Amino acid sequence: MNATGPVHEALAALPLTDHHCHGIVTADLDLPGFESLLTEGEPWPGVSPFDTPLGIAVRRHCAPLLDLPRHASPDAYLTRRAELGGPEVNRRFLTAAATDTFCVDTGYTPHPITTPRELAATADATAYEVVRLESVAEQLASTGVEPDAYPDAFRTAAEEAVRRPGVVAVKSVAAYRTGFDLDPARPSDTLVAAAARQWSAHGGRLADPVLVRHLLWTAVDLGLPLQLHTGFGDDDIRLHRADPALLTDWLRLIRGTIPVVLLHCWPYQRQAAYLAAVFEQVYLDVGLTLHHVGPARSRAILAEALEITPFRKLLYSSDAYGLAELYRLGALAFRRGLGELLQERVDADELGLPDALRIAAWAAGDNARRLYGLTAPEPGRAPDSAPATRPAPDTRPHRD
Amino acid sequence: MNATGPVHEALAALPLTDHHCHGIVTADLDLPGFESLLTEGEPWPGVSPFDTPLGIAVRRHCAPLLDLPRHASPDAYLTRRAELGGPEVNRRFLTAAATDTFCVDTGYTPHPITTPRELAATADATAYEVVRLESVAEQLASTGVEPDAYPDAFRTAAEEAVRRPGVVAVKSVAAYRTGFDLDPARPSDTLVAAAARQWSAHGGRLADPVLVRHLLWTAVDLGLPLQLHTGFGDDDIRLHRADPALLTDWLRLIRGTIPVVLLHCWPYQRQAAYLAAVFEQVYLDVGLTLHHVGPARSRAILAEALEITPFRKLLYSSDAYGLAELYRLGALAFRRGLGELLQERVDADELGLPDALRIAAWAAGDNARRLYGLTAPEPGRAPDSAPATRPAPDTRPHRD
Amino acid sequence: MNATGPVHEALAALPLTDHHCHGIVTADLDLPGFESLLTEGEPWPGVSPFDTPLGIAVRRHCAPLLDLPRHASPDAYLTRRAELGGPEVNRRFLTAAATDTFCVDTGYTPHPITTPRELAATADATAYEVVRLESVAEQLASTGVEPDAYPDAFRTAAEEAVRRPGVVAVKSVAAYRTGFDLDPARPSDTLVAAAARQWSAHGGRLADPVLVRHLLWTAVDLGLPLQLHTGFGDDDIRLHRADPALLTDWLRLIRGTIPVVLLHCWPYQRQAAYLAAVFEQVYLDVGLTLHHVGPARSRAILAEALEITPFRKLLYSSDAYGLAELYRLGALAFRRGLGELLQERVDADELGLPDALRIAAWAAGDNARRLYGLTAPEPGRAPDSAPATRPAPDTRPHRD
Repeated sequence: MNATGPVHEALAALPLTDHHCHGIVTADLDLPGFESLLTEGEPWPGVSPFDTPLGIAVRRHCAPLLDLPRHASPDAYLTRRAELGGPEVNRRFLTAAATDTFCVDTGYTPHPITTPRELAATADATAYEVVRLESVAEQLASTGVEPDAYPDAFRTAAEEAVRRPGVVAVKSVAAYRTGFDLDPARPSDTLVAAAARQWSAHGGRLADPVLVRHLLWTAVDLGLPLQLHTGFGDDDIRLHRADPALLTDWLRLIRGTIPVVLLHCWPYQRQAAYLAAVFEQVYLDVGLTLHHVGPARSRAILAEALEITPFRKLLYSSDAYGLAELYRLGALAFRRGLGELLQERVDADELGLPDALRIAAWAAGDNARRLYGLTAPEPGRAPDSAPATRPAPDTRPHRD
Repeated sequence: MNATGPVHEALAALPLTDHHCHGIVTADLDLPGFESLLTEGEPWPGVSPFDTPLGIAVRRHCAPLLDLPRHASPDAYLTRRAELGGPEVNRRFLTAAATDTFCVDTGYTPHPITTPRELAATADATAYEVVRLESVAEQLASTGVEPDAYPDAFRTAAEEAVRRPGVVAVKSVAAYRTGFDLDPARPSDTLVAAAARQWSAHGGRLADPVLVRHLLWTAVDLGLPLQLHTGFGDDDIRLHRADPALLTDWLRLIRGTIPVVLLHCWPYQRQAAYLAAVFEQVYLDVGLTLHHVGPARSRAILAEALEITPFRKLLYSSDAYGLAELYRLGALAFRRGLGELLQERVDADELGLPDALRIAAWAAGDNARRLYGLTAPEPGRAPDSAPATRPAPDTRPHRD
Repeated sequence: MNATGPVHEALAALPLTDHHCHGIVTADLDLPGFESLLTEGEPWPGVSPFDTPLGIAVRRHCAPLLDLPRHASPDAYLTRRAELGGPEVNRRFLTAAATDTFCVDTGYTPHPITTPRELAATADATAYEVVRLESVAEQLASTGVEPDAYPDAFRTAAEEAVRRPGVVAVKSVAAYRTGFDLDPARPSDTLVAAAARQWSAHGGRLADPVLVRHLLWTAVDLGLPLQLHTGFGDDDIRLHRADPALLTDWLRLIRGTIPVVLLHCWPYQRQAAYLAAVFEQVYLDVGLTLHHVGPARSRAILAEALEITPFRKLLYSSDAYGLAELYRLGALAFRRGLGELLQERVDADELGLPDALRIAAWAAGDNARRLYGLTAPEPGRAPDSAPATRPAPDTRPHRD
């Protein structure tokens, strides 16, 4: 786990574009509150979430930023964290993340969390917004929309949502709701209205396969890049149905339309790599995975993800939610893992140093800027890969 | 493959709890007999089972314990084995395994093998029993039970079986019989009786999906930890149906009831890790896998299994059957693989030494003792994770 | 990535048997033409196929054979390639591949490519032929065969195709057409005729599940080893349906008949290994994979593929198509990857050197020669594993 050499130095100096993350919880956190944000599930009596690879990584890599020794105890950690107070803690970790651009999914808010603008202010960075389409649909349903009007009403609501300044992408958590083993065809409005009627009658969250298909096809109409949760998550997912390979038939049907970004992917990072290698519009990251496995395994995960992935297709995301530590750990695990992988190949003369530096710069931010059209957003400039007919998004970022 | 350092020393000194294994074949073994026990399939003409990673590991790590040079030939190995005789060979390997506790699945007996008591005597250890529920059901069916009486009769037979002294868990080989792609709901007794009628008419082993579901739900009623074969095995399995992720819906339904232990898992160790990370009641091991892949790959397998698994959830098992060599190799591959993984992280300062030692002790035995309530079993003391309403098992071990 | 030591030396000196490959494109290649052969998909505007692990490997390991520095630019590479001309380039790479035997799939010819005889002449090697059964069926269909006559006519056409001199195996791309989630039973001729009628009415390539099953069972009747594409390929595949584990029920039904060789396998190399470990007739390779991931990852892939695979079951193939570079890279990645894996185990004394050399020789060619009956083909000598009742193929090779 050597972290010296020119590739490591380059990655340390490159600010990251975190193309998929969430906000930070703003409330003060005690030990139970902190632990509940440290795990994808709920904490369990007698089993500390600190006794995981993520917990070990927090104690190793975050404690020193709170002026504590490496491997500090959870109690010492939480005590010091409280002493410093949320704003100072958040500032330290977000500064250490050295991330200058965030694309923030604003549709997941079980806790009071920072807005993109607040996150950007804390990190001295720029924030864009990612619209979660399930939230748009559920918001619409909560207004009591007529089922027959739902197909159009959802399209309209989604169009309005992405017209907000700073929106650069949409996201779907179809993986959680139905999984990807869906009929890939666009459902007729009649079919969608019938499903909306059922949903209206029974309530709950959007989880009907026809409505999920309608949502995915609406994303195609919107023309913005679509981020898809794939692979692991909390206990609400059926992992085998979140294998991105199940998207293949749909990806064929939408060829030539929108970019599709596969998020997280673990343990299906090789399946995701296959899709990124054969479909022009497919990109991937291993966000969420990297902070859960920690720096000790980040190279191994990235090595699998990159076995056949074109180097233009790898993005960086933290998928951090809630804890400022996760922005720091995601960035560290990414820089460390990618640095080790590339530096080792340079040292073995399997890869030229200029190529390694180019790949590092692409993954750190160039690929995301190119995909989302983030660089110097001129009026009317659409992301490179978006269909020309799509109305150019106003990507004026929140900048503080 | 460095095996020095304080973590290795600690693991060498820690006696193991082998929470899932079988008995040793007591008959003398010639080369064909030995080879047939060395492979999960049947031996094939012209292809020696010694020409596998397991065979290489036997010649490398077991030959010296029979006073032979490393990498001794199969013929030399079998000759020396016969010279020493079964009891001496078994004594040497079981002593070398340095395992002080065995939980023995007594329901798989294609050959005459040792009882738990005999195994314990050979190893100078303590043995508990694991009741294989399919064997209970098939034993019941062989008595000609009335199909309408089957649902209750199986529950009663299972309750009786686990009431025997020293029983600490039940096991199911549903992976072999139907796989895990089952309706997760508890079947009605009417449905079960109808399936029992079919089974009674057609005979054979228990392989009906309704009967398998009834078996799994009976395990929930019994209240003891349930061990589940997952992943690879012999040619009787359909690997993709033994992916533990397929259990997700059932694991949700049984939340708050019994612990479920995923055995073997390969090549789905990451899927198993996901379940262990998000479901409080799920544990895993990579038994069987470790001796098949051998010490040269044990770190790699454990590294994948531990990417996100909480350290309280990893157990050790050999899943040894028949050959005393397999107890030795399982223990060696576990100590070596876990030792390398932890020591490397300590050496890189990614993990504190006290934490590494704690994780090693948990995996070597503490986790299993806690799960099965094995330590100093006081009268009426139930395993920690078992529901309070379950009658406390008499876990008086067989001790010699 | 150390490549010294006796195992590496032995592998460098061993000529390879490439048991599955295709021909070389004979036309001159400009940059777009070269790039289109470098990727499994189509090239995309703005994303060079050189910016992949395969592209990096070409610039690193192929450029020096064209008298260029390591890591030469794509432009310099193509310029020099054109200067030397196709025949000289092909000669250099095929010589560097140090492969003395090729088994050539002649049924995939989207470009004008070399015949087996021409390939053999370029490489100063021996070439055998592999008959792609889908091509036989589609050729038959193009003649306007009566649907009722199709079942017998296909069997007859296949028998004729494999009777050609030098044919040693058949191949199916069922993975592309339907995937492996098929009813494993042999379909009746009535059923096949009905499916042939549908096919005749609708045209297109052979993709009906009944016709694919008939094709696979015809392969069983032919008695020659059957090569099956499994795992990844171009964007025409649904990856999850190409998991070889899905073949399990069919492999059980055909036990005792023909050898089945699982090609490529990635990312299901462990699933393939399981099948090779439990079914006598199953073999595997990681061809195609190795040149796509490149020498930097070939050891990792082989290590997974060999976790439980009997050493008699691993074959070498390049699965090269079109570019002479791919024969060179496949051979290099195989020698390097297997050499590193075995040498490392020898250095750690986990494996005896004589055993390592034996395993290397088996994988480099002995296993393939044994399987296909390639060594010194005497008149009437059938491959070792073929059923005795099968008419012996005339395996007179094309030799120049």
